Amino acid sequence: MTLIDGKQTAKEIKEELKVKVAKLKAQDHPVPHLAAILVGNDGGSVTYVNAKVKACAYVGMESTLITYDDQVMEKTLLDKIEELNNDDNISGFIVQLPLPKHIDERKITLAISPSKDVDGFHPENVGRMSLGLPAFVSATPNGILELLKRHEIPTEGKDCVVIGRSSIVGTPMSILLSRNTPTGNATVTLVHSRTKKLEEICKRADIIIAAIGKPHFVKAEMVKEGAVVIDVGTTRVEDNTKKSGFKLYGDVDFETVSKKVSFISPVPGGVGPMTIASLLLNTYKACVQSSDKLSIPQK
Amino acid sequence: MTLIDGKQTAKEIKEELKVKVAKLKAQDHPVPHLAAILVGNDGGSVTYVNAKVKACAYVGMESTLITYDDQVMEKTLLDKIEELNNDDNISGFIVQLPLPKHIDERKITLAISPSKDVDGFHPENVGRMSLGLPAFVSATPNGILELLKRHEIPTEGKDCVVIGRSSIVGTPMSILLSRNTPTGNATVTLVHSRTKKLEEICKRADIIIAAIGKPHFVKAEMVKEGAVVIDVGTTRVEDNTKKSGFKLYGDVDFETVSKKVSFISPVPGGVGPMTIASLLLNTYKACVQSSDKLSIPQK
Repeated sequence: MTLIDGKQTAKEIKEELKVKVAKLKAQDHPVPHLAAILVGNDGGSVTYVNAKVKACAYVGMESTLITYDDQVMEKTLLDKIEELNNDDNISGFIVQLPLPKHIDERKITLAISPSKDVDGFHPENVGRMSLGLPAFVSATPNGILELLKRHEIPTEGKDCVVIGRSSIVGTPMSILLSRNTPTGNATVTLVHSRTKKLEEICKRADIIIAAIGKPHFVKAEMVKEGAVVIDVGTTRVEDNTKKSGFKLYGDVDFETVSKKVSFISPVPGGVGPMTIASLLLNTYKACVQSSDKLSIPQK
Repeated sequence: MTLIDGKQTAKEIKEELKVKVAKLKAQDHPVPHLAAILVGNDGGSVTYVNAKVKACAYVGMESTLITYDDQVMEKTLLDKIEELNNDDNISGFIVQLPLPKHIDERKITLAISPSKDVDGFHPENVGRMSLGLPAFVSATPNGILELLKRHEIPTEGKDCVVIGRSSIVGTPMSILLSRNTPTGNATVTLVHSRTKKLEEICKRADIIIAAIGKPHFVKAEMVKEGAVVIDVGTTRVEDNTKKSGFKLYGDVDFETVSKKVSFISPVPGGVGPMTIASLLLNTYKACVQSSDKLSIPQK
């Protein structure tokens, strides 16, 4: 069994980006610049946005953190988004979710220009991805593809089961793995809460992507000998023995499943660390595209 | 075995629309108005566009046909699209594909405002569909859902195999059938040219959607007793005994497969007739949405 070490892979990606960004600087090319909008002071969001800013600094990218208190008006956010859309110094930007209830997240997501939407949440990017056009693919699916690629796990002709049909992981993952690309060409079955004989279907899979959000849902008896298992789940379960007060549970019962598989990604330390690396990759791409006028075509 | 009669279903939809459009007129509500751009005089395209115009007239909708010779400049088309995007009298419009080689189809598709894109080809509509947001779904997938719904064929919890991963049929079909909706909730496997054991996978299916474009690809031995089979294939094969000079072949070997199944859609007369009905449904929706200011939110 080989452990898919997301921490290590994310580190490799960051080191590669460091070199690439330094090259841009040496060529007097504009440097990738990520802006992040943070509303309120939800602990998770603050930590996560700070980690993104720190990662930018590490690879030599610029970043701008824009903060608002949780009473901010929707209009204020929309105006800032409009400003960032038109600011040539910003390669791409994100609005950290979740937002306070009085703000319409959908409206905010739709306001971001698809060519600066490095989170890949805008429907135009989702559609472009589905159509095989140049697109920003969102962090988690993109991170999973990177993990598979960098661990040289072939997908072509493989039976792949994606557990969970969420808009941000399961559904895009099923599309990406089906496409005619080097990290695609798999035969994908998307299973969910209404699926019958779920265990039987999982048992047939060469590759399982578990993204259902139920702690230890995937048991050893659901997994074929020698399969590849990617665990996307991250459920916080209270745990007083931890400094943070909680323990992170994946969707896979790692202890038993890991004994049967060829590759497995742990939680924590698997897919999680890849999300920031994916965001940096997208920001780099946004920068290079926009200054080379190779930007995704706008209406 | 029940024949899924697309001609009859399309007729029912048109009759329903006729009543609805008459109601709009009686309420002094703007009437749905479809514009169609036709470039050149390719026989198939001319026939198809004319059929669309005729169908509009039948249900009481307005239509405008805009024709160009095949030497038209891309810029001229883009200008016309811009004009139609901003014309409040036009509910929605289409550009009949294929276009001459000197015109970039992708650029044309991207130029159409998503809120008037009644063909549902713009990436924003594809993405919206995938995200479960209000969207124009393209004619063929939409037509298939209508056929299933109107024949009361349940999809929830069913094992569904979609053969072929094209952007316009297979991929959107796999997404639509997976979603948490009354015409979704199926467990979908998307199979394609790189799939191994394709016959075995098909044999497990409760519902097969064949959209691979290979005449009579689906044989009786690939189909489970009592399955539902929807044939999307339309390959023209030369046939001098026909007035048109060709015969239309589906992806399904109808003669043998029809003996095993519970429902089957024939070719011709199955999915084909539904595409124009779908376009009319989208045009009606575009009209009602835009005048009720319920339009899909714009950036």
